[in-house]
Amino acid sequence: MKYFIGIDGGGTKTDGILMQENGQVLARLAGGAANMQVVGIERVCDEIKRLVDGLTARAGLTGGENIHLFAGLAGAGRPEDRQALIARLAEIIAATKISVNSDAIAALYGAFPSGAGMILIAGTGSICYGKDRRDRHYRAGGWGYLLGDEGSGYFIGQQAIVAALKSADGRGETTVLKQSIEAAFSLDSIEKIISPLYSGQISRADVAALALVVFEAARNGDHAALHIIEKAGLDLGELIVGLARQAGLEQQRV
Amino acid sequence: MKYFIGIDGGGTKTDGILMQENGQVLARLAGGAANMQVVGIERVCDEIKRLVDGLTARAGLTGGENIHLFAGLAGAGRPEDRQALIARLAEIIAATKISVNSDAIAALYGAFPSGAGMILIAGTGSICYGKDRRDRHYRAGGWGYLLGDEGSGYFIGQQAIVAALKSADGRGETTVLKQSIEAAFSLDSIEKIISPLYSGQISRADVAALALVVFEAARNGDHAALHIIEKAGLDLGELIVGLARQAGLEQQRV
Repeated sequence: MKYFIGIDGGGTKTDGILMQENGQVLARLAGGAANMQVVGIERVCDEIKRLVDGLTARAGLTGGENIHLFAGLAGAGRPEDRQALIARLAEIIAATKISVNSDAIAALYGAFPSGAGMILIAGTGSICYGKDRRDRHYRAGGWGYLLGDEGSGYFIGQQAIVAALKSADGRGETTVLKQSIEAAFSLDSIEKIISPLYSGQISRADVAALALVVFEAARNGDHAALHIIEKAGLDLGELIVGLARQAGLEQQRV
Repeated sequence: MKYFIGIDGGGTKTDGILMQENGQVLARLAGGAANMQVVGIERVCDEIKRLVDGLTARAGLTGGENIHLFAGLAGAGRPEDRQALIARLAEIIAATKISVNSDAIAALYGAFPSGAGMILIAGTGSICYGKDRRDRHYRAGGWGYLLGDEGSGYFIGQQAIVAALKSADGRGETTVLKQSIEAAFSLDSIEKIISPLYSGQISRADVAALALVVFEAARNGDHAALHIIEKAGLDLGELIVGLARQAGLEQQRV
């Protein structure tokens, strides 16, 4: 009997599933962040080991089984990073076969098992990933929180904080985002977000979760919020256009 | 005899000076980054202790002198942070008096010992700081690299990397910044900047130093570089306008 473990690791959370050869799901489990560029290879491998141990325990496997592990991980787009991950995972996990790829690739093949296709992901981070009919791959964006993740939840939340600070220091227009963000983090003034944000007490996932606050403010007609959402939409569109340009699909209907 | 030690700590480097009561400079010394929001209070205090020890050793002081220490530090704008810094410094440094304030305040009083004035600082980070005739203080910006530091060296360098990545993935126009940044960090492709940048191997100071590359590209007419410089200029202008608006100086000539 063969068993398959699939791991889907993003910037905020990681999902794991264990199936047997016939497709029957034996166990599901969720864990923490697994972006190796952000939390480092060791923490990603620890997280995956914890999930694999939890899944096999739940399914009652004893350890000698023929297990194939596939992990689709945010930040694992580069071959040298993937090799390092596989080498480390092989040291700590007993599996017959271990494969690693980016979470975007996993999602792409999930959506388009064969043929051409393109996916746009906007979670904590953002990326556009695609393949053509000859299975050549293309990517646009996905460079992480320091270089954009344009249109992502983190980007929307970060821009909301910036708009609130600008509203407080005389640079920007008045916005309800200031009050909403203060309420979300129980701050008596928006400036007090600085220390917890830089210390990591307010995490990137917390910043990304502010996107919901921004959407609500936009529905109520707040200008600053509407501007952020509009910019995020344009940025996501730009990712699609960038990918289409690389793949030579500009003139095609998709 | 009284001695005065002045410390000017920024996001990239820290300068120290030791003077005696009559104003004669006895020693000067430079050290590393001292932004407590970024490197943490312990590393800032260690850096200051190292500078104070080096300065007193150079000046041949033996340790029992009447020393007044003033540290103007990036990221020390909030009273609660300053109190924590002073308490920790008092534990590790033998000085008669220890005062801490933000580096922006130090620069403001350096430029305008009395009366109203406004300074705009754009180094690794950016901030606008001012005081009116009644010595009331105002600030705009200076919220650090995660929330903007608009118009700063870091912001210019970061935007240059983003423009280079966008040029590589089909989203942006072709720019010499891609080649210049690859050359600056000895990378064979711009995508290879991601790992060293997130791991800190390429520091924020290194990113800020890219501003020189952007200025050179702009002088040679590169569109992406010109756009970044223009945006930085507008952002710095916005800091001044924000501060003037807070201080009610919009209609005044300054």
